Amino acid sequence: MAALFRGSRRLLQKRKDNVDLSTVCRSMASKTAVGFIGLGNMGIPMALNLLKSGYPIIATDAFPESGKELQDHGAQILDTPAEVAEKADRIFTMLPSSPNVIEAYTGANGILKKIKKGTLLIDSSTIDPSVAKEMALASEKMGAVFMDAPVSGGVGAASLAQLTFMVGGLEEEFTAAKELLGCMGANVLYCGQVGAGQAAKICNNMLLAIGMIGTAETMNLGIRLGLDPQLLAQVLNMSSGRCWSSDRYNPAPGVMEACPPPTTTWGFGTTLMAKDLGLAQIMATSTLTPIPLGSLAHQLYRTMCARGYANKDFSSVFQFLREEEGQ
Amino acid sequence: MAALFRGSRRLLQKRKDNVDLSTVCRSMASKTAVGFIGLGNMGIPMALNLLKSGYPIIATDAFPESGKELQDHGAQILDTPAEVAEKADRIFTMLPSSPNVIEAYTGANGILKKIKKGTLLIDSSTIDPSVAKEMALASEKMGAVFMDAPVSGGVGAASLAQLTFMVGGLEEEFTAAKELLGCMGANVLYCGQVGAGQAAKICNNMLLAIGMIGTAETMNLGIRLGLDPQLLAQVLNMSSGRCWSSDRYNPAPGVMEACPPPTTTWGFGTTLMAKDLGLAQIMATSTLTPIPLGSLAHQLYRTMCARGYANKDFSSVFQFLREEEGQ
Amino acid sequence: MAALFRGSRRLLQKRKDNVDLSTVCRSMASKTAVGFIGLGNMGIPMALNLLKSGYPIIATDAFPESGKELQDHGAQILDTPAEVAEKADRIFTMLPSSPNVIEAYTGANGILKKIKKGTLLIDSSTIDPSVAKEMALASEKMGAVFMDAPVSGGVGAASLAQLTFMVGGLEEEFTAAKELLGCMGANVLYCGQVGAGQAAKICNNMLLAIGMIGTAETMNLGIRLGLDPQLLAQVLNMSSGRCWSSDRYNPAPGVMEACPPPTTTWGFGTTLMAKDLGLAQIMATSTLTPIPLGSLAHQLYRTMCARGYANKDFSSVFQFLREEEGQ
Amino acid sequence: MAALFRGSRRLLQKRKDNVDLSTVCRSMASKTAVGFIGLGNMGIPMALNLLKSGYPIIATDAFPESGKELQDHGAQILDTPAEVAEKADRIFTMLPSSPNVIEAYTGANGILKKIKKGTLLIDSSTIDPSVAKEMALASEKMGAVFMDAPVSGGVGAASLAQLTFMVGGLEEEFTAAKELLGCMGANVLYCGQVGAGQAAKICNNMLLAIGMIGTAETMNLGIRLGLDPQLLAQVLNMSSGRCWSSDRYNPAPGVMEACPPPTTTWGFGTTLMAKDLGLAQIMATSTLTPIPLGSLAHQLYRTMCARGYANKDFSSVFQFLREEEGQ
Repeated sequence: MAALFRGSRRLLQKRKDNVDLSTVCRSMASKTAVGFIGLGNMGIPMALNLLKSGYPIIATDAFPESGKELQDHGAQILDTPAEVAEKADRIFTMLPSSPNVIEAYTGANGILKKIKKGTLLIDSSTIDPSVAKEMALASEKMGAVFMDAPVSGGVGAASLAQLTFMVGGLEEEFTAAKELLGCMGANVLYCGQVGAGQAAKICNNMLLAIGMIGTAETMNLGIRLGLDPQLLAQVLNMSSGRCWSSDRYNPAPGVMEACPPPTTTWGFGTTLMAKDLGLAQIMATSTLTPIPLGSLAHQLYRTMCARGYANKDFSSVFQFLREEEGQ
Repeated sequence: MAALFRGSRRLLQKRKDNVDLSTVCRSMASKTAVGFIGLGNMGIPMALNLLKSGYPIIATDAFPESGKELQDHGAQILDTPAEVAEKADRIFTMLPSSPNVIEAYTGANGILKKIKKGTLLIDSSTIDPSVAKEMALASEKMGAVFMDAPVSGGVGAASLAQLTFMVGGLEEEFTAAKELLGCMGANVLYCGQVGAGQAAKICNNMLLAIGMIGTAETMNLGIRLGLDPQLLAQVLNMSSGRCWSSDRYNPAPGVMEACPPPTTTWGFGTTLMAKDLGLAQIMATSTLTPIPLGSLAHQLYRTMCARGYANKDFSSVFQFLREEEGQ
Repeated sequence: MAALFRGSRRLLQKRKDNVDLSTVCRSMASKTAVGFIGLGNMGIPMALNLLKSGYPIIATDAFPESGKELQDHGAQILDTPAEVAEKADRIFTMLPSSPNVIEAYTGANGILKKIKKGTLLIDSSTIDPSVAKEMALASEKMGAVFMDAPVSGGVGAASLAQLTFMVGGLEEEFTAAKELLGCMGANVLYCGQVGAGQAAKICNNMLLAIGMIGTAETMNLGIRLGLDPQLLAQVLNMSSGRCWSSDRYNPAPGVMEACPPPTTTWGFGTTLMAKDLGLAQIMATSTLTPIPLGSLAHQLYRTMCARGYANKDFSSVFQFLREEEGQ
Repeated sequence: MAALFRGSRRLLQKRKDNVDLSTVCRSMASKTAVGFIGLGNMGIPMALNLLKSGYPIIATDAFPESGKELQDHGAQILDTPAEVAEKADRIFTMLPSSPNVIEAYTGANGILKKIKKGTLLIDSSTIDPSVAKEMALASEKMGAVFMDAPVSGGVGAASLAQLTFMVGGLEEEFTAAKELLGCMGANVLYCGQVGAGQAAKICNNMLLAIGMIGTAETMNLGIRLGLDPQLLAQVLNMSSGRCWSSDRYNPAPGVMEACPPPTTTWGFGTTLMAKDLGLAQIMATSTLTPIPLGSLAHQLYRTMCARGYANKDFSSVFQFLREEEGQ
């Protein structure tokens, strides 16, 4: 198997020459304006945290009204990614999926239309690693640097600046990226070349989905066998069955306070999980990797989307597997 | 769904009358001889720990030579479970599977042939909860008390008296059982009526199997995508993908020291895991509970047994899913 | 693997001595009364077909009113299986599941309480092969012969005497059984020793479930890709994708007339399919046989039962997997 | 869901104008030379059948020696697809996978470099339908017509001109395509717009894979339960378990003559099946379609490739699921 994210030395060298000077410039340019494209549930609190840390924000969103809150806090809202690129040399994108990212970068009013040489581009969306690589290549051609830095943690963590960032891209740019990412998250992990952040994120979410469904099945089975849910959770969490979904986000009602969350505003939706598992599936198919449980997890979340669970939190798989009468 | 392990008050009352006096007797009889039936990899270190705590041991095994080591440490070795039952009023059984337990209790030379009224019987085997209930009923008819107390932790934990016991049976007998179980384990958890220990154990192992296969798939996929295995493990363990198999027993070579274990002497074998998942499957089928991932995990371990992995540690699912050339 | 249904010669010999004379008697007794226990959707048309063939019927059912229709056609209705056994020396049972069969044979008013030596007992219920073997043993002790003869074909085939019978039991009794089974079915297949009929039936239904879900997934995928459902069915049925569910019972609306059926009165219910798959699962678990697709099919039908599809035809898996909007 | 393969009337009209004249020309040009690109196990017998029907053949292959046999029968062998396109206005491609097709059409020496207006291009490779659509678009820009016509049937059917063709493309071109396809196959089915042939083919192969694994599981389970394999096959084939893999290609040894085939030269390899299931998976993921059994079938064939079954016939899943000792 080729090591997809380990850049060859030659490539690194070439890229380095390309961007070296501008890196220096950016370093000196600290606390100058930062661009932010994509003001959804995640983007807004992330941009607010950058503002709080003292960075002027120049932002845009496909829905102009999304910029209102940020504007009230002093951000400048422009019409298009191209306009943002004209004014900022460090730009974040935080968008729902691959097509949005492609549009924001390479569209008619996209970033690359007006980008300045040496600009640092950081994409925190969760997308196909191969799209991340395409964007990196397109950016490089314009003399800019692209990094992927998808997040783990949801809206709550975004508000509290407690996100985890998994970063892929040139190692020598990591310091510059970390300076900004550190304002929005508690953990910033360097994972390897461009796309490696996405790969790590998707691997994590696949195992998360497996753990969540497994926990739901196990709690449901135990309850059917007459075990007390809280006791069963305690047994699992003291033993080898323990996982994040059993000890932090147990989906059986009554085991944890405020879990599962009443709506997806707070949580992580079934549709998003199905999307991430679809990415995992595509990556596994293209690398000829067997993922039997990951694949079945994908199918279950896909079936849930088809059966009315599209807008529920991903922990609702517990309800999905219970018998109708028991809900 | 009927709560299978929640005894009705009436039933508890009736049983209480039956055994009340003897309970008192046993409490006073502390440090009198304890019977131990089943001297395999687990049974021997468990019995040794009881000896160390000052309890005289009267033991037996289907293979007489198995008693040798224990005899050297001062235990008395007899020929049959019946003979042990004649001499001890607290008896442990630690046997490979349901048929062995049935034989040890109800066989021609079984415990119940010579059992004394008021004897406390504790079965630490992992068996079908319905067999546990049958044994409890048969014991009750002879005026004895049966509890199930399967363990989590393997040979290593058994040697270090670090086992976790999941206990099912009459709550008022739990104190007496705990006195002895505490000599062999670090955690002794009361789970409910007879069979509840087995139910909790099997639930745990089902989630363990799911977590292990999920971790193996995820590590394998990440490596194929070019991620460094140690870095990927670090990302998972800081994020929501974390589980016991990712942070304590990571199956990808090089991530943890001495993991996966070279042989099953130390670890937990594929065949045993397949057996436990078979029990989970039977319990789920009889309670009409959907367990899609648990069921697929069962099939994967069953397929591994068929493909030459029967005697390997259950973490070898990582190797099973890798491509031939990569091993 | 021991051949579970192949009787040893010695055993056959012994049994033969036991029943030889009575076999002769029954052969001469043709057109004498036949007992029928279990007058549900299947039992009534089956008993009516025996009546049409000239056999007097002596019947019973747990719900006395179930006998009304048969009585109108001249059958004698009694109160209990024991009373039927007193009057008939060839008796059919057609009951919902294992516990009903056990009760009908070994209950307080069961067949075996009043059975005559040499009676031929034929059970057409679908039950666990191990229960069939227990009933055979209990019958043998009373000098009677037990055969299992589960059916394939549903209520429609039962009415038209077009059922397929899969028969297990002593080969020398097959002729006597076939005489009666031939009045109710088009195919009567000898499968081996007692339990072999059940084994064959359950194997067939497992593959049926796999074929049905597979056809539903395939038709759904094709439709999503823009293919015309009738054209796709035609392609499959001319190619290697062909199966009974694609060419005889295609679950995609509009492909076949009257398929899927509007209610389960005509068809085969999801709950019954889940029950048969549960039996397949138990048999596979006890023989250590991997059945990955069979196992997942079981879980899907189990999940459907939990999600409101319990009373629908088993072909409704097509609807279950479609997106909500498309129904 | 948009109907991906149903062209709008407007689009059809536009395309019609584009190609109308040339269609007429081709019709008159019958028995003029036909181009053939890709001379592998399938391509050679297909091209030979065109030769037999009186069509001069102009062919090429990436491996020049592959053309030897065809040359001996009178075909002209050229160096590149571009050269073939210069001389023939009806061209077949029969290549292993998507990248080869892309290269043959759009590569430096590809067909489109020298294509004549009005040429009819027919691709019989099995590829991603989205690649088929890209090739169609690229061809249309050059004034040519592209159709996809993947086959079902293998090398044996190719030699006997017994293939089944599933055709996608402009309906008014179907007659011209059928004239040639009829020389190589027994069934030529029009499936819809470009890509529809691929979609139908992949749907069929997904159901084939499910049927084959299901049959293997069922035969294996039945044999373990003591049933005679030939009897079990007979029961299934008379009942609702029947499918192509049970009645035409039964994988259990001894049930059918010459089945399973000793090598993949004759059969359909595990690697190819895994590839087709990968395409099904990608199509299902992109259309948000749940395919639980199809997905697990994909994972099983992928695991088989990883475990030494890559070069075996796809029916070897029977051996894969059996226990080692039993083989």
